[in-house]
Amino acid sequence: MDNSLQFLENGSVTSVPGMKAAGVTAGFKKSGAPDFALVFSETPANFTGVFTSCTFAAAPVLLDREKVLRGGFLRAFAINSGNANACTGETGLANARRSCEIAAKALGISADEVAVASTGRIGVQMPMELIERGIALAVPALSHDGGAAASRAIMTTDTLPKAAAVQITLGGKKITIGAMTKGAGMIDPKLTAPHATMLCCIATDVKAENAVLAEMLQPCAEDSFNRITVDGDMSTNDTVILMANGVSGYELKRNTPEFEQFRAALLAVMQDLARRMVMDGEGSTKFVTVKVIHAASRADAKLAAEAVGNSLLCKTAWFGNDPNWGRVVAALGYSGALLDPDKCDVYFDDTAVVRNGGDAGVPESDLVPIVSKSAFVITCDLRDGDASHRVWTSDISHEYVNINADYHT
Amino acid sequence: MDNSLQFLENGSVTSVPGMKAAGVTAGFKKSGAPDFALVFSETPANFTGVFTSCTFAAAPVLLDREKVLRGGFLRAFAINSGNANACTGETGLANARRSCEIAAKALGISADEVAVASTGRIGVQMPMELIERGIALAVPALSHDGGAAASRAIMTTDTLPKAAAVQITLGGKKITIGAMTKGAGMIDPKLTAPHATMLCCIATDVKAENAVLAEMLQPCAEDSFNRITVDGDMSTNDTVILMANGVSGYELKRNTPEFEQFRAALLAVMQDLARRMVMDGEGSTKFVTVKVIHAASRADAKLAAEAVGNSLLCKTAWFGNDPNWGRVVAALGYSGALLDPDKCDVYFDDTAVVRNGGDAGVPESDLVPIVSKSAFVITCDLRDGDASHRVWTSDISHEYVNINADYHT
Repeated sequence: MDNSLQFLENGSVTSVPGMKAAGVTAGFKKSGAPDFALVFSETPANFTGVFTSCTFAAAPVLLDREKVLRGGFLRAFAINSGNANACTGETGLANARRSCEIAAKALGISADEVAVASTGRIGVQMPMELIERGIALAVPALSHDGGAAASRAIMTTDTLPKAAAVQITLGGKKITIGAMTKGAGMIDPKLTAPHATMLCCIATDVKAENAVLAEMLQPCAEDSFNRITVDGDMSTNDTVILMANGVSGYELKRNTPEFEQFRAALLAVMQDLARRMVMDGEGSTKFVTVKVIHAASRADAKLAAEAVGNSLLCKTAWFGNDPNWGRVVAALGYSGALLDPDKCDVYFDDTAVVRNGGDAGVPESDLVPIVSKSAFVITCDLRDGDASHRVWTSDISHEYVNINADYHT
Repeated sequence: MDNSLQFLENGSVTSVPGMKAAGVTAGFKKSGAPDFALVFSETPANFTGVFTSCTFAAAPVLLDREKVLRGGFLRAFAINSGNANACTGETGLANARRSCEIAAKALGISADEVAVASTGRIGVQMPMELIERGIALAVPALSHDGGAAASRAIMTTDTLPKAAAVQITLGGKKITIGAMTKGAGMIDPKLTAPHATMLCCIATDVKAENAVLAEMLQPCAEDSFNRITVDGDMSTNDTVILMANGVSGYELKRNTPEFEQFRAALLAVMQDLARRMVMDGEGSTKFVTVKVIHAASRADAKLAAEAVGNSLLCKTAWFGNDPNWGRVVAALGYSGALLDPDKCDVYFDDTAVVRNGGDAGVPESDLVPIVSKSAFVITCDLRDGDASHRVWTSDISHEYVNINADYHT
């Protein structure tokens, strides 16, 4: 039995047996690019989800949360790009419900079995004729190799589609986890169980109760999407849906080695996608890992890492290949984390730049090559405890300003 | 008796009788621009100060805090621009002390009577020969009209010097408050009593005990500098020093109408300077007032206003003249403030753009002219209580990225 975890080449949601998908052009995007995705499970799938913790949660988020709480099975997940259906009130909610009904009718399933997600402009009512067109085009286009097309259809300011799949062997059975995600801006998800605009659809062919899936998804979200930031702005629409169609015949149960194996595989897929979201963050030219180690508590480590990861001065310095560690320690200092400034060490990759809260004496000319790389790690050693936290972040460039000073989908 | 408050034309610290100042070129700035300021009180001045709450407080902050706590009198305030003396450890602290001694000797006063402040690059030891040169040049240059020169010498990325003075009449005596400040980036001060890199020197000719000054300064800082943000990055060096030289012969006492009159005048000067800091924020093209009203509590109002004021997506939209209110409500939603999304109204100036959490129906073409102005107000009415908060903020432009992707003073 091969216990190793393998990423599949060109993996996607449809790498999972029993899953179909399609990506079509419904007309939400002026560019004419694909903007409507449909993912379909040939068999009823157990499911769960985690969603934005923004108070202004979008209509599809409100609806999907209800479905997660109610339980049961999911067959389809319909996603449009170009309109967020957020801040649209009762009409927006009715439109989200109507989308489920239209999809259900076209697929011959129940509306309860359809989840929806939207991304795009906030505060504009959904043009329902485009939803109708999307569904009418997507249903006949559903196919066992439609995962790639679906992952392109959910893009907004993304420059690349993001899909992945891994395989592991559990109980002698080959198990696949396939997923797709989008998101390049308004990215600082804080996903919480039924209560991040990143959208993610994950499918797998294990069989597992909804509660088992929920127990799995939240900590994996915590260690993947909840640890990324592009601009520090949490979205109204962040949604991750996990579907388990049971097609493999293998049933996943709690408190088993296989549970942990599966969780590791799920986390691997989610982290892979999370990393790619940051790399493809709006205008991003650098992938920066901020690690805080030896903090007094997990909360302190998180405060410190998130302050550095979201610091506009740090992010613009990185864009400029400027190894200005003063901005890193300033962010640590205002983070609210408990720390002794005289004990802090800071490393750029393996090079100590700060020792005991002061200059470690490495000439700037030695540091510029590190921060000029497309990916580097900043480690802040607080030397005060054993808690740690890691954040994946990007730089802020002129292109970021270009994109966001004039974003009208 | 004229009770009105009057701003003086070309007001500065030296508008205050008994105050001298100078601004000279010591050599900290490669550009050769003035970079060393000295403010001098001809008589011993009562004083107080408020400082950054960053854990990595710079050496001059540590030293000035000590002086504020110890009490006594202040005669001189020496400020250099081009080196922050932050994260410089014991050597940095010794250098800050040495600066006080050099200035004291040159002025014929005690080192205890000298406060120091620094702004510029973090983590570089202070070139003491430049401090010596600065003092040697500044002392003979001290004059009763040196306030303007001093305000220029403390600039870093500021494009304009910032000085102001007001006069009021208290007990039949004309009282002057004069001040200068600098700060265009790393601006999100959270000044706290003896515990923002904005620097501010305020002088007045009332007589008042240090404790009376302290009671006055903290709430005024709270309502001025603590309500501004440029980039959300708090500095290691933020320092505000208030000196009261008593030259007017009028003594200010607690629990008097004059105390409130003086506080209003002090607040007026500090707010004037705070507004100018935001207008001159790095790369700033817009001055945006974010008001949150009818919040359940002051804390909720503050969370909500600060989230909008620091949102990178809001700030880039403003730069682009984009009336995308979805970004405003998203920020309200992730702020952590208690609010009912279905009750929120949002106004751009006097135009309602959001009613009950949704689009108020005003065409975008009517909103673009508002957000294209150099100054506008965003009011978020949470309709949930009677607490409110206001933040002054700027947009984020290409010039901001230019400045901060390559800032080496």
